[in-house]
Amino acid sequence: MSDPRTIAFLSTLIPMTHLEKAYRARFPQAELRFPGALGALDEIEVAVCWYPPDGLMAQMPKLQLVQSVGAGVDHISADPALPAVPVCRIIDPDMGQGMTAYVCWAVIHQQRHMGAYLASAAAGRWQEQPIQPPRKHRVGIAGLGTLGLACAQALLGLGYSVRGWSRSPKANLPAGLQAFHGEAQRKDFLSGCDTLVCLLPLTDDTRGVLSQPLFDQLPRGAHLINVGRGDHLVEADLLPALASGQLGAATLDAFSQEPLPPEHPFWSEPRITITPHIATRTAPSVIAEQTAQNLARIRAGRAAEVAVDLQRGY
Amino acid sequence: MSDPRTIAFLSTLIPMTHLEKAYRARFPQAELRFPGALGALDEIEVAVCWYPPDGLMAQMPKLQLVQSVGAGVDHISADPALPAVPVCRIIDPDMGQGMTAYVCWAVIHQQRHMGAYLASAAAGRWQEQPIQPPRKHRVGIAGLGTLGLACAQALLGLGYSVRGWSRSPKANLPAGLQAFHGEAQRKDFLSGCDTLVCLLPLTDDTRGVLSQPLFDQLPRGAHLINVGRGDHLVEADLLPALASGQLGAATLDAFSQEPLPPEHPFWSEPRITITPHIATRTAPSVIAEQTAQNLARIRAGRAAEVAVDLQRGY
Repeated sequence: MSDPRTIAFLSTLIPMTHLEKAYRARFPQAELRFPGALGALDEIEVAVCWYPPDGLMAQMPKLQLVQSVGAGVDHISADPALPAVPVCRIIDPDMGQGMTAYVCWAVIHQQRHMGAYLASAAAGRWQEQPIQPPRKHRVGIAGLGTLGLACAQALLGLGYSVRGWSRSPKANLPAGLQAFHGEAQRKDFLSGCDTLVCLLPLTDDTRGVLSQPLFDQLPRGAHLINVGRGDHLVEADLLPALASGQLGAATLDAFSQEPLPPEHPFWSEPRITITPHIATRTAPSVIAEQTAQNLARIRAGRAAEVAVDLQRGY
Repeated sequence: MSDPRTIAFLSTLIPMTHLEKAYRARFPQAELRFPGALGALDEIEVAVCWYPPDGLMAQMPKLQLVQSVGAGVDHISADPALPAVPVCRIIDPDMGQGMTAYVCWAVIHQQRHMGAYLASAAAGRWQEQPIQPPRKHRVGIAGLGTLGLACAQALLGLGYSVRGWSRSPKANLPAGLQAFHGEAQRKDFLSGCDTLVCLLPLTDDTRGVLSQPLFDQLPRGAHLINVGRGDHLVEADLLPALASGQLGAATLDAFSQEPLPPEHPFWSEPRITITPHIATRTAPSVIAEQTAQNLARIRAGRAAEVAVDLQRGY
C-alpha cells in the first residue's frame, strides 16, 4: 500500500508533535502537517484527531480516514459538519495494563511514603517512614468498567483492601472486592476510602463530582487519584481541601486544561503529584500502525470492518 | 500479664529508636533502654535484637526472652555466649506483600519514567516521556523463594514479561513465568533482563554476585533492583557500570553498611534510587505485639510453641 500523500494532525488542545516520529517512521513517503501549518486542505488524505476544530474536515475533499488517537470518538463526532468519511478509533489491549501500572504506582508511592524517601535520599539522609501493611489501607475505585476492574484486581493482588462503586450493580466482580452501587451506597463507599481512584466516565452526572462535598465524605487525610477526566474535578476545591488536611495528597493525570498552564497553582503544591495525561496513553507507534491498518482496510473497500458506528459511539 | 520491668534494645548496627513508640504503647509499664544507655543489666527481662553485641546477654541473669526484630535469628545465634533463654523471631504474613508492593513500585517507577515526570512537575513543566507497554519490558527475578514468587506473580498480573532464575529447578511456578535454573542457564536468563531484581539468599556463592561480570551480561541500560542483602552487591562496580551506560539505573534498598554513610558516593548519583531498607520491614507495632505474645507463652511455660530451634535456624 502506498503512503497517503498528506497526513494532517488536528487538535484544538495539544500540538500533537509527540506523534511525529512514529508517523514519520511508519509513513516515510507522507507529508506530515501539524496544527497551525496545515497548508492546502485539498491535499490531506488522513486526519489524525484529538478534539479537532469544528468544520475543518468538511473542507478536505480527498479525506479518506478520520483517525482518533484515543479509544473514544466523541471529540470527533461533536463536529456538526463532520464529512461522511470513515472514523476509526484506537483499540489498544495495552491500555488496561498501562492504567493498572499507573494506579498501582500512585497507590504504593503514597501509601509507602516513596516520595518522602526520594526527598530524603536527594538530601543524603537515611530517614525511615511509618509502615502500614497494605491490607490496612483501603483503596476505593469509583467506576467499575474495564479499567476500574483491572485496577481493582491488581490492587487486591498486592494485598490492599479494595472497594468499588458503580452507578448500577455489577456481576462477576473479583473475589475480595467490596462492592457498592448507586446513590444510596455512595456515602458508605466514600467513608472507607483511604485512597479514592476516579475512573468514572465523564457524563453530566459526574462532571465536577470530585468537589468539596465529596472530599468531606472521605476519611480525613485521604489520597485522591484522578485518572478519569479533568472535568471530574472542581479544581478550585482541591487546594482548600489539601490546606485543611481533609485531603492528604492528590495524584492527578488529567486536567480541565491540558497542558496544565505554567501559572496554574497546582504546580507549586507539593501534596499534588502531576503527570501529563500519561496513565493510559497509547504508544505513538501503535497509533501510527493502526492508522496504517485502518487506511488499508478502507482503501480495500472494507471500511465497515474498522469504522466506528457514530450513533452507538464505539 | 504484667509488663516486663525492663526491655533492652540491642544492636551493633542501628539505634533501634524506630521501635520506641510501638513498645511504649504496647508495654506502658516497662522501662525501655536503648544502645549506649542500657543501665543495670540484671534488670533486663526482654532483649529485642538486631545484630546484638556478643556476650552481652550472658550478663543478663533475669532475661526471659530474646526477640529478633526480623524473620531470621542468625544475627543472634552468632553470639558464642548466648544464654539458654528462648529466642523468638517475627512471623509476618505481610512481609511478602510489602516486598511485592516495593518491587512493583520500583519496576513501574523506572519503566514508566515516573521519576522524570516528578522532576518535570517540580520544575512546572508538562513534559511527556516515551511509552512502552509492560509486555515489552522483561523483568528477571533472581531467586524464586516465597518473596521472589510473590513478586513474579504480581508483575505478571501487571502485564510485564517475567522470567525467573533459581539455583535448582522449581515446581509449581506461576503460569507465564519463563523459568531458568543453574549455572548453565544463568547467561541466557541475564541476557533478557531489562530489569533485574535480586531476591537471592545471601550465601558464600551469592556474596558479591552483583558485580561487573554480571552487569556485562545484562542488556545495555538495564535497571538493577537490589532487595536482597547489601553484600550481594560489589558497591565499587556499580558507579562505573552506570557511568558507562551498561546499567541505566539502580534501585537499592540494602547496603553493606547501614545506615548508608553520609559521605557515600551513591547518595549523589541521580541514577541510583536509595531507600533505607524498608522494602520488607515489619511494622514496629507488629514486632511489639509479637514480643508480648511470645513473652506470655514463655511465662506460661509454653516456650516450645514460640522459640526457634537454633540448630535448624527457624
